[in-house]
Amino acid sequence: MALSPKAVLETSLYVTDLERAVQFYEGVLGLRKIDDGYFPGGRGAALQVGAERSVLLLFRAEITQQGGELPAHGTAGAGHVAFRVEPEELDEWRKRLREYSVSIEKEFSFGNQPASIYFRDPDGNSLELAVASIWRFER
Amino acid sequence: MALSPKAVLETSLYVTDLERAVQFYEGVLGLRKIDDGYFPGGRGAALQVGAERSVLLLFRAEITQQGGELPAHGTAGAGHVAFRVEPEELDEWRKRLREYSVSIEKEFSFGNQPASIYFRDPDGNSLELAVASIWRFER
Repeated sequence: MALSPKAVLETSLYVTDLERAVQFYEGVLGLRKIDDGYFPGGRGAALQVGAERSVLLLFRAEITQQGGELPAHGTAGAGHVAFRVEPEELDEWRKRLREYSVSIEKEFSFGNQPASIYFRDPDGNSLELAVASIWRFER
Repeated sequence: MALSPKAVLETSLYVTDLERAVQFYEGVLGLRKIDDGYFPGGRGAALQVGAERSVLLLFRAEITQQGGELPAHGTAGAGHVAFRVEPEELDEWRKRLREYSVSIEKEFSFGNQPASIYFRDPDGNSLELAVASIWRFER
């Protein structure tokens, strides 16, 4: 069988205030922080997304750009991540965002699909809540 | 049950030469391009990762930063993505990278885990092939 990765394991976003960002992702999105040990000196944080093996990494680019034990990386500007949600949860998500005073920047339907909900994290990264059926996955 | 996303659905990286990037991800990593319709005017490309619902988006930041129908985003600098591979495949991956003349920048073992393999895409984004057991996922 052809060699290819099984999935994306780690997705990265860059933030300036790590504590504020973790609070946002834990509160608004309900993610869970895991494994602090890999992030000495406030370098970043890892958040588990759902029950699948999916990790969101929040990094402080000013530190990760310096490299060190691991290869250097780090970006400036707004990144983009979409989180998979279920279609029947979209109203609950709208309510959740209102509760946390997070503005919905846009709702957009791809074709006839349930709307994707777009909003920003405190660093301006563009986040999307989307149903999986917006993509025509091949088996 | 508490509301939280099921997984990361879309992970984004930014590239300057889209064709070169797609060729790299299709060739070296064996990803499959899907759904060109969402990317008018060379805005980006979507690649399915594995058989799970996991999408890598490649964007040209010079275009996505302008916004339009969808919220603006776009970064400069090296992003970071880790792809999930199986431990018994690591040697095949080393061989694959050699075949494509892609330099391994670093191999690093987290604790007693099989090594993560780090390399760069043509735009300098930091890619990692990693086994899922480097993370202590909670159920």
